[in-house]
Amino acid sequence: MGDWQRYLEEHAARFTEELVDFLRIQSVSTDSAYRDEVRKAARWTANRLEQAGMEHVQIMETEGHPVVYADWLHAPGRPTLLIYGHFDVQPADPLELWEHPPFEPHIEGDTIFARGASDMKGNVLLPIFASEALLSTTGGLPVNMKFLFEGEEEIGSPSLEPFISSHRELLACDMVVCADGGVGSKQAPAINVGRRGLMAIDIRVTSARTDLHSGGAGGMAPNAIHALVRLLDSMRDDEGRILVEGFYDDVRPLTAADREDIARYPFQPESYKETTGIKDFFGEPEYTPMERNTVRPTLEINGIFGGYQGEGTKTVIPREAAAKITCRLVPDQSPDKIRELLIAHIERHAPKEVDVTVETFAGDAKAYVLPRDYEGLAALERAVASVSDREPIRVRGGGTVPVTSLIKDALGVETITLGASLGNDRAHAPNESYDLANFRRIQRAFCILFEELSKSPVME
Amino acid sequence: MGDWQRYLEEHAARFTEELVDFLRIQSVSTDSAYRDEVRKAARWTANRLEQAGMEHVQIMETEGHPVVYADWLHAPGRPTLLIYGHFDVQPADPLELWEHPPFEPHIEGDTIFARGASDMKGNVLLPIFASEALLSTTGGLPVNMKFLFEGEEEIGSPSLEPFISSHRELLACDMVVCADGGVGSKQAPAINVGRRGLMAIDIRVTSARTDLHSGGAGGMAPNAIHALVRLLDSMRDDEGRILVEGFYDDVRPLTAADREDIARYPFQPESYKETTGIKDFFGEPEYTPMERNTVRPTLEINGIFGGYQGEGTKTVIPREAAAKITCRLVPDQSPDKIRELLIAHIERHAPKEVDVTVETFAGDAKAYVLPRDYEGLAALERAVASVSDREPIRVRGGGTVPVTSLIKDALGVETITLGASLGNDRAHAPNESYDLANFRRIQRAFCILFEELSKSPVME
Repeated sequence: MGDWQRYLEEHAARFTEELVDFLRIQSVSTDSAYRDEVRKAARWTANRLEQAGMEHVQIMETEGHPVVYADWLHAPGRPTLLIYGHFDVQPADPLELWEHPPFEPHIEGDTIFARGASDMKGNVLLPIFASEALLSTTGGLPVNMKFLFEGEEEIGSPSLEPFISSHRELLACDMVVCADGGVGSKQAPAINVGRRGLMAIDIRVTSARTDLHSGGAGGMAPNAIHALVRLLDSMRDDEGRILVEGFYDDVRPLTAADREDIARYPFQPESYKETTGIKDFFGEPEYTPMERNTVRPTLEINGIFGGYQGEGTKTVIPREAAAKITCRLVPDQSPDKIRELLIAHIERHAPKEVDVTVETFAGDAKAYVLPRDYEGLAALERAVASVSDREPIRVRGGGTVPVTSLIKDALGVETITLGASLGNDRAHAPNESYDLANFRRIQRAFCILFEELSKSPVME
Repeated sequence: MGDWQRYLEEHAARFTEELVDFLRIQSVSTDSAYRDEVRKAARWTANRLEQAGMEHVQIMETEGHPVVYADWLHAPGRPTLLIYGHFDVQPADPLELWEHPPFEPHIEGDTIFARGASDMKGNVLLPIFASEALLSTTGGLPVNMKFLFEGEEEIGSPSLEPFISSHRELLACDMVVCADGGVGSKQAPAINVGRRGLMAIDIRVTSARTDLHSGGAGGMAPNAIHALVRLLDSMRDDEGRILVEGFYDDVRPLTAADREDIARYPFQPESYKETTGIKDFFGEPEYTPMERNTVRPTLEINGIFGGYQGEGTKTVIPREAAAKITCRLVPDQSPDKIRELLIAHIERHAPKEVDVTVETFAGDAKAYVLPRDYEGLAALERAVASVSDREPIRVRGGGTVPVTSLIKDALGVETITLGASLGNDRAHAPNESYDLANFRRIQRAFCILFEELSKSPVME
């Protein structure tokens, strides 16, 4: 290993302090109350890129939250990488379940707890620190680098597609490295070669002009909650199969080879149950939990509300109830088509005694799968292997990184994923955490990846 | 009419001002944040009783909110009436649907808008003002009077039964007059001869220790909202029939005479739809809306919540979801038995992948029906007729006044109802209102009722 490795070691304490600083910013993109905090995170990121020696650092406006761009383009004849990440985070609620305040980072041993630690402020810093180390110790970078960090990933990246489409030249590259995710632990390395897509809708049921008295109106008036419950219950069967007509039509059949691959994933069911506190796995019994999580689509109610939610009882017939739904999609499901099928299902099953409205959201994402023989993937495997105890396996993930399919469509290049998040980090949940040893290890992996890619033939 | 009528007329403006004053108190009994406000309403009521000339005025403690007692017992050989009412109110939310702040009473023409206006602070004042008018103008009252006002009616009167049971002598009387309710309009007077009972439970579903990421866990982990939705949807069919086994077993069959009585109720379906904004009536199609509202039991979800409820989307699998349910009961359903049946249903239908817990509440109420030939009812009919354009009809109501069956059990006497609430007052809902002309009219009805009862043979 070179001097960059000593640089990373010598600056490790400062890097952790900088992560703490970054995590204090409450950049919750879904809630407009935090708009200024998202911008603050953009400025923080831009400043840090500049400090690392990157050039043309810019905060660029979109219809929503801003984007941060930077580059270093002094490696003629070498490939150009575009690093992608996001500086926004999920909401922190329910706050009462956090053992420490979500925006006051807490370190225990080599673990840091904070909203956004794993998803993905730690990972944003990985390629920045790696570039700084290489630049400081070798005077240059082995490849050309571009950085694109957005502030809307947690709301489905609505502004990213128009931004990329209108900045194709600025963003032109040979490959994208997505820092959102992980490559497993040192002991059990795993490289993500596919992710699911996403489609979101809200459903609102209205049954009257006001809440009604459950005595005076009970037996006469329709109840918005009962109607919503009937509608929602029509969407899945008792074992979790999705009953929306046509929902599974475009799903690729699971092959025996797929099943064998997935069976090798480093998944420990008992440990998962222990960590999450679930009584048992749930879903289509004809598939294993890991199959259902990676190559099967889902429909989940993410939130529901209506009527009285306070202490004690309130004898009302509520006028309104609403639910939030997201679907995870797999190849070759189209988000647009799935949305249409779901809306058609809602129209068919909407109780006739109430009004039902559907709100749709920008930021759909198609599922994405990397070609098996892609040379960038081989370079990534070499980089990860060199900081791990064994060769990494290839896995498909259950989550969504909308940028992958979007980049393929807009820039015509593939996206590999390198990050330091681990499966038990509680991303999106209370007490989100991040392993600092892994944080340091993957900084090294980035340096090696850059060196590997500088000699990769596909990158020419 | 006597001098008392002139007294009521001369003091009408002051009485309205006093109602406004009373309505400013935020005596929401279900929410412990308003505990002091409930006590403030008790003090206000006690002061007003004293000012009216009542004696032995006391604020008496219970396990929960206090009770107000007062009496005037200087009519030897005459019957003793116990006036019942409550000074607590329903919560005001959803606040955004109020056209004026709920605790800043707003008067338009002869209508006052405020939380508690109709249910039942206006009605609390009716017998107080009537007694004051009689006492001031005649030097005495035609009957002996006791007043019992509680602060827990809107949470099912949990402390009232122990209070009455331990104060039988203090509360001994020949008849109770409940001021909670109404006797229709001047043009269409109607006397309530029965009400439904009430039983409440909360259901909570837990599926994991924390919310989970809908990507990382989707397809593996159970979802608390889906499980709750399935459980709730098992409780009623698509037409509103209750599917809890045994629920209807003790319900008295509806007779042809009952149907004829109910068909005469002054109910205008089109006007009801107009007022409430419902698209159509909903419930067991084999009964009319008014039959379902008065002599058929109900099961209604009053509130539901779980997962993310904020702006935008949040891709979580929620760990917890909960619903609030109340049932309106009819003769001869037992609240205890219905609660057991509902819990048995929940146990039978609880999705096995989640934990389900049930919380029960004190303050059940049996349904109550007044004997057809009761003399107190005849006196009430004469009093109401004398301030109306025609003879009142007899109706059964859909609501619950727990005190009626409780008083029958504990004190052995019947309860008649006289109040000034109207069907379109939006009790329990935003923009609750109260008709001030009716308020003045029913003050007169109280004076006449007291005079009628002083000569009533059953009262001896």
